[in-house]
Amino acid sequence: MTTWRTAPTRTIDVNGTKFAYRELGDPTGVPVVFLHHFTAVLDDWDPRIIDGVAARHQVIAFDNRGVGSTGSTVPTDLEEMGADAIAFIKALGYDKVDLFGFSVGGAVAQMVALQAPDLVRRMVLAGTGPRGGGGIWKMPFIVGGAYAKAFLTRKDPRHFLFFPRNAEGKKAANDYFARLAERTADRDQPISQQARLAQLRAITGGGLHAPDDLSKITVPVLVANGDNDLMVASKLSADLANRLPNATLRIYPNSGHGGIFQHHRAFVPEVLDFLASKSSVAR
Amino acid sequence: MTTWRTAPTRTIDVNGTKFAYRELGDPTGVPVVFLHHFTAVLDDWDPRIIDGVAARHQVIAFDNRGVGSTGSTVPTDLEEMGADAIAFIKALGYDKVDLFGFSVGGAVAQMVALQAPDLVRRMVLAGTGPRGGGGIWKMPFIVGGAYAKAFLTRKDPRHFLFFPRNAEGKKAANDYFARLAERTADRDQPISQQARLAQLRAITGGGLHAPDDLSKITVPVLVANGDNDLMVASKLSADLANRLPNATLRIYPNSGHGGIFQHHRAFVPEVLDFLASKSSVAR
Repeated sequence: MTTWRTAPTRTIDVNGTKFAYRELGDPTGVPVVFLHHFTAVLDDWDPRIIDGVAARHQVIAFDNRGVGSTGSTVPTDLEEMGADAIAFIKALGYDKVDLFGFSVGGAVAQMVALQAPDLVRRMVLAGTGPRGGGGIWKMPFIVGGAYAKAFLTRKDPRHFLFFPRNAEGKKAANDYFARLAERTADRDQPISQQARLAQLRAITGGGLHAPDDLSKITVPVLVANGDNDLMVASKLSADLANRLPNATLRIYPNSGHGGIFQHHRAFVPEVLDFLASKSSVAR
Repeated sequence: MTTWRTAPTRTIDVNGTKFAYRELGDPTGVPVVFLHHFTAVLDDWDPRIIDGVAARHQVIAFDNRGVGSTGSTVPTDLEEMGADAIAFIKALGYDKVDLFGFSVGGAVAQMVALQAPDLVRRMVLAGTGPRGGGGIWKMPFIVGGAYAKAFLTRKDPRHFLFFPRNAEGKKAANDYFARLAERTADRDQPISQQARLAQLRAITGGGLHAPDDLSKITVPVLVANGDNDLMVASKLSADLANRLPNATLRIYPNSGHGGIFQHHRAFVPEVLDFLASKSSVAR
């Protein structure tokens, strides 16, 4: 069986731009499309999450416009990122998908659900919050601090941004980066400086944007986060779940923005249960 | 003669809020009102600049709403900061002032000149740029990095934000902080966390705001900056001067955001010349 470690990188033309993606898992049923975090390329997906979901679903992960191996440049606006994701999904021929959005990917997933409500069956929104959420506009301040620490310590900034700086968190960070390194062949292109800055601007603009009417997103949503997220305050995930009419909130202990990676053993079964359930999710 | 070191801190009621200010210098003629930088309180003014200007003009420095010893809270919008500055100036009884704005204070000065054009005779705008200027929105990223370095090195973040990290810059930074420490009595209250975050949000929002029509600001303006400003790119000061119909641009060598402090010996005479000249400034 194909795993994330060996899934080939494919490309598809989307209105003149080559989008890079990988797919694996059971190709029957509704696929789960993964939307990624600030600075992330395909190889930044945790194999345990991807393979865990792919055990029961078709999984499609892609580099959105301007990211990694995908051509063109990253737009500076979340709505445009959502439109690009819709164009990619439609180019693959799907008219119904589940979305798995992490961090800014979760913001993009909300844009997809608002722009193309019929396209989305269910969503998992992890480490993310609503547009106009209090404090998201200052993410560049948090990121800047982590980048400085990363530069001074020669560590990936996600050591500081995704995991608590305690014994459990440091071990979780090291385990996470070891998993990201499992794939050794056919790795993705790194993020560009253009992509990094455009994403940061889109996140900042989203933070200062007027709130969306999330009551329009009526599909079941699983909202997940760590209990002490420095990038998107955990209370903003709670606010997101509260404003979505059909959402369940799952908060993991002693963890931050990367809580779903730190707690992947608990998280993956919850995602599978959520995606498999036939009825609406109870609040 | 009163100097910045001993000028008493006064308060005045502005629509129910006590504003803290200090004034010194010749009380005849048009006063020069100083507008300050992100996180700055009265004691963060460089005595050489204040005393230098006060040698020939009345100087009024104040804590805007929510800053330092002034009551209330800092608004999250540059236009409101401008309106607060206008209310303070009018409460003091002035109908014509010169403005000296540094960094976000320079942005507030632009708001004053746009909202109350008849109030302003001349402006000095240092270490600042226009609203909607490319890249100002990401200042929190720069600030966050500097705060992390400051925390790790137990230095004031302005060591990293205001001065180049070379021999001349490091000496200039140390000299600057020594000057800020000259006043020992009747010092101001420190900036609050509310003020800090509201200012950062206002700066971010200003960066993402639509550009103002600066051709409406017809008064003479001296635009000054270091040649390698990390917070407000020096080219944005050039852009500001270019869009103001009556501006002179002065860029100081081997210096950054705090270029006017590093080069105060050259800068003060230029400010005095500028404020004294009767006619419009040549481009």
